[in-house]
Amino acid sequence: MKSQNRVKLLLKTVAITALAAFSLSAQAAEKVYRLKLAETWGPNTPILGDASKNMAKLANEMSNGRLQIRIDSANKHKAPLGVFDMVKSGQYDLGHSSSYYWKGKVPNTLYFSSMPFGMMTTEQYAWFYRGGGMELMQEVYAPHNLLSFPGGNSDIQMGGWFKKEINSIEDLQGLKMRIPGFAGEVFARVGAKPTNIAPGELYTSLERGTIDALEWVGPAFDLRMGFQNIAPYYYTAWHEPGSETQFLVNKKAWDKLPKDLQIILETSFRVAAFDMYTQAIDANATSWEKMLTDNPDIKVRDFPPAVLERMRQEKDTLLEEFAAKDELAKKIIDSQATYLKRVRAWTDISTKAYLDSSAVK
Amino acid sequence: MKSQNRVKLLLKTVAITALAAFSLSAQAAEKVYRLKLAETWGPNTPILGDASKNMAKLANEMSNGRLQIRIDSANKHKAPLGVFDMVKSGQYDLGHSSSYYWKGKVPNTLYFSSMPFGMMTTEQYAWFYRGGGMELMQEVYAPHNLLSFPGGNSDIQMGGWFKKEINSIEDLQGLKMRIPGFAGEVFARVGAKPTNIAPGELYTSLERGTIDALEWVGPAFDLRMGFQNIAPYYYTAWHEPGSETQFLVNKKAWDKLPKDLQIILETSFRVAAFDMYTQAIDANATSWEKMLTDNPDIKVRDFPPAVLERMRQEKDTLLEEFAAKDELAKKIIDSQATYLKRVRAWTDISTKAYLDSSAVK
Repeated sequence: MKSQNRVKLLLKTVAITALAAFSLSAQAAEKVYRLKLAETWGPNTPILGDASKNMAKLANEMSNGRLQIRIDSANKHKAPLGVFDMVKSGQYDLGHSSSYYWKGKVPNTLYFSSMPFGMMTTEQYAWFYRGGGMELMQEVYAPHNLLSFPGGNSDIQMGGWFKKEINSIEDLQGLKMRIPGFAGEVFARVGAKPTNIAPGELYTSLERGTIDALEWVGPAFDLRMGFQNIAPYYYTAWHEPGSETQFLVNKKAWDKLPKDLQIILETSFRVAAFDMYTQAIDANATSWEKMLTDNPDIKVRDFPPAVLERMRQEKDTLLEEFAAKDELAKKIIDSQATYLKRVRAWTDISTKAYLDSSAVK
Repeated sequence: MKSQNRVKLLLKTVAITALAAFSLSAQAAEKVYRLKLAETWGPNTPILGDASKNMAKLANEMSNGRLQIRIDSANKHKAPLGVFDMVKSGQYDLGHSSSYYWKGKVPNTLYFSSMPFGMMTTEQYAWFYRGGGMELMQEVYAPHNLLSFPGGNSDIQMGGWFKKEINSIEDLQGLKMRIPGFAGEVFARVGAKPTNIAPGELYTSLERGTIDALEWVGPAFDLRMGFQNIAPYYYTAWHEPGSETQFLVNKKAWDKLPKDLQIILETSFRVAAFDMYTQAIDANATSWEKMLTDNPDIKVRDFPPAVLERMRQEKDTLLEEFAAKDELAKKIIDSQATYLKRVRAWTDISTKAYLDSSAVK
């Protein structure tokens, strides 16, 4: 009897030890981290909305299921422009949006999407990853308990759709145009009347003459909206030469992840971002080709040099005002200006020279 | 005695089962896969050599040490242009090199680095990832038991250093130039004498007049070689508008990896490739700025339109010959031509229009 009890006890001890060891090992390997992401876009938004889906899938696959990311679109959380606050507060762990949406709240977030007359996409990626841009972006977001990463680029944006041709600064006086944000401020200073209008009302507003012009994104997005049917002039780029979206991360949620999952997450951001850029190039090229076939009467125009020059001057004046008011703003503006000057000289002698001298026949 | 034996047996069984369970679980989580990579470049080659180092580090970190990649540079394996064979045979699991090095062995590998008058880097990435390029590349490499992935881009290559100015086709007659590969064949057809010379002898050959001209890469690589001190003319791009390197994988080694490590490896390739591209842009921009300051007498020139036009015609003729001889070659050439036409129309109205109308003041 005594011997039998001893056996039972021994067996029990061995079993518990084995179970504990097994479970500890399995736990380290298998612990699942569930993160919630809020995106600014509506459900199934092409290109913009693909970025976080691709990111979540890749993070899941590379972590063998240990990173599970749930994506809530704008229809779910009802706060498309509240992503910054929701990730800051920890209501969401992650966000996918665009940095310049927060300029009313944190003015220095303005500089990490795209600047009028600024860097194009690959120039800007070089600045982010090799020219100090990432460090400056973290400096802006850190006080808000947030990390920010490039979140995918929608490629060069077109200058927008106009009902009348723009031949001079005079043609812009009183012109009602949907052009929000910083570019809108620049536009106002040359005499135009910028407004913001909800996406769902854009077509009707332009059709009925509530506005005279609008900018949206580029051919891949614009043609779905039907603007080519109601405005004959399509202008080339000046105000968003490489619009970068962003992945936002709550710092506390980040700190809870083991090192390998942090790197898997950051890498998934990076691949999804780069993938969105190639997707946007491809979609723009396809849409552009279609537009030239289906809408041969669309008149594609550059803004006249005098108009561009005035807009550039107003942009410079605004940036000087921002730099004078805020030390970190000055640091970012100077960093971008220095980098742009250097990288554009190379772009001009490489990309531009090649495009000039080697036009496809 | 009988009872005691039964106890011993039971204990032994439980212990073995527990140990097996523990070890199985730990093994799944911890099994280390050691892969060997051969690169074409010498040890510590900047930019080109950083790609596989960055890739191996990232794969190691994301896999929590389960992927260990050893890199052998050319000084170790002694076969810089033998990477294809060594990975095909399984002597190495991975390679980092450039696809057009194998055109003598497998002619259709030619198309996956860069083509004269072809796509620029981001256009080509869009073709790889969205335009069917990846699928065509696998079709070429699959019969050799290999997988191939984009391995990083060295940015637009300059047209090279010349001792005399090129004003006409006549100036190219008999001109001895280091320009290897397909571009060299094009060059030969317009009357020049292309040669290949080992990197270590390039400077002396140009200095002593053994050759009249050479192309190397771009400012980031060229200035280290000192060509700016012995050749006054630096020509803009035509022959390699976006040279992509490649990661090669032995198919059997790939098939042995669990799914999550395959995805981690593929993702590490992709990030390292994209990172090399931003690094090359940054390094070229920095070197270009330095050259303009240190060597203000360098004369930067575009080839005359008539010269470019003849070279383009010869390139077209060569490609027509290749297409006529090989069905897969025809499929790739057609795919690239169709994609280039579409994407370049968009590049011209976006990138080129922006660069034309918004030059940095």
